[in-house]
Amino acid sequence: MKIQIDPHALQREALRRRAQGQRIGFVPTMGYLHRGHTSLLSLARDRCDWLVASIYVNPLQFAPTEDLAAYPRDPEGDAEKCREHGVDCLFMPEALYLPEHRTRVGVDGLSLGLCGGSRPTHFEGVTTVVARLFGLVQPTVSVFGEKDYQQLTLIRRMVADLAMPIEIVGGPLVRDTDGLALSSRNAYLNSKERSRAVTIYQTLCHLRTRVQAGVLDTEALVQSALSELQVDQLDYLEIRDGLSLEPLRTVQPGARAFAAAWVGRPRLIDNLELLS
Amino acid sequence: MKIQIDPHALQREALRRRAQGQRIGFVPTMGYLHRGHTSLLSLARDRCDWLVASIYVNPLQFAPTEDLAAYPRDPEGDAEKCREHGVDCLFMPEALYLPEHRTRVGVDGLSLGLCGGSRPTHFEGVTTVVARLFGLVQPTVSVFGEKDYQQLTLIRRMVADLAMPIEIVGGPLVRDTDGLALSSRNAYLNSKERSRAVTIYQTLCHLRTRVQAGVLDTEALVQSALSELQVDQLDYLEIRDGLSLEPLRTVQPGARAFAAAWVGRPRLIDNLELLS
Repeated sequence: MKIQIDPHALQREALRRRAQGQRIGFVPTMGYLHRGHTSLLSLARDRCDWLVASIYVNPLQFAPTEDLAAYPRDPEGDAEKCREHGVDCLFMPEALYLPEHRTRVGVDGLSLGLCGGSRPTHFEGVTTVVARLFGLVQPTVSVFGEKDYQQLTLIRRMVADLAMPIEIVGGPLVRDTDGLALSSRNAYLNSKERSRAVTIYQTLCHLRTRVQAGVLDTEALVQSALSELQVDQLDYLEIRDGLSLEPLRTVQPGARAFAAAWVGRPRLIDNLELLS
Repeated sequence: MKIQIDPHALQREALRRRAQGQRIGFVPTMGYLHRGHTSLLSLARDRCDWLVASIYVNPLQFAPTEDLAAYPRDPEGDAEKCREHGVDCLFMPEALYLPEHRTRVGVDGLSLGLCGGSRPTHFEGVTTVVARLFGLVQPTVSVFGEKDYQQLTLIRRMVADLAMPIEIVGGPLVRDTDGLALSSRNAYLNSKERSRAVTIYQTLCHLRTRVQAGVLDTEALVQSALSELQVDQLDYLEIRDGLSLEPLRTVQPGARAFAAAWVGRPRLIDNLELLS
């Protein structure tokens, strides 16, 4: 496995491989890799000749009040996990943006609400960094986790709208044995916080059970589920369409529950399909 | 020459040709082609294996008050000119954007002032359409006229920032024998308006002459030049750096004069390097 820190050297190699007809797979990450990430690497590995993973904690997607400086890091452990999962090139740039960088890519509408509500500049930072990474890596296929479901939806929209010739694959959310969605930010939780964090997933499961029992009114569903949650502060608990992300009054096929809440220091997110 | 109206069929052919190692040249236009455009086609023709020109009057770059519906059109004449100048594929989509299009690409800073001052939504429309066209056409090289100098600067910035592997070539401004910069919008001018429109270029030449005589204070230069202009309404007459587009107090190498003014119906623009 090659470790590459130079963006332009990476792009030169990518363009050379594409001109030879190779398929390039790409999994962008912010590092501190867990089984959620490595499941994405495996999905990408099966779909390409040359697999690139990137680790870059992107300042553009953090607000000044957020945890950019404290974001957990483990470059040696990450490199080892990438090696084990068949990565050919690990891209770890020190500087990703040009000093004169001024371009921003945004997706209107889909960025509103859910995480876009409490993190208003977040998604423009995500789509901008992903657009630049796609330019550098020239992927044929790129895999994003369904844990960041709104992010995945926005990236699909950007790729379609800008006619980027890239297949976007969504990787299923991976949970720990207690049900907590894997996240690099779980590292912040002590054991008491962790047992409360698990109530986020339990609440989503409760919603799904009630839907399976025939309750389809989303306001009633959400109201009845709130008592399950043992979090410090709820950001949102909503039922939306899984494709358009439009809020739903009545559960319909493809409906999905989305939750975000603070437990101790971290803000945690989760989502679950309620009706297939 | 093939005339292509289907964006996705165009992209399929472009990707096939790129995978065969071909160089694709691209000149995007809004049609009603004149010698300014055909000079760009010739510049691109020399740099590629497969030359694509596009004609699309992009609604995103017109404000509601502007001349979108009245923008001059001549598809048969345009196709003939493209054929004569070696275009292999003329892309004339009826619908360019997807119905659900929501993505916008913008360049901060460089869009402020000059044409971005009087047309605040214009450049986001330009960079968005060019990003989508680049995705569809997959060019190796793309040529833009220096008449739209701020647009060229923004596109260079976007391409660098998003690491698009595309060489951007600027084509020199082409003038009529009387000095008027060629523009599709010149078709709106009657003969009296035209003789007044020429004073825009004459004013830029006056500025250059004064600079050559040693006058370097930009405020004094602009003040002395205003009396030359016989336009209905001046939008701007400014001296800026040709690379950064920053306003200059003192003329330095690379300084450029920029003008925009209404004469009769159309708003006309022009620019000239003052010191090389």
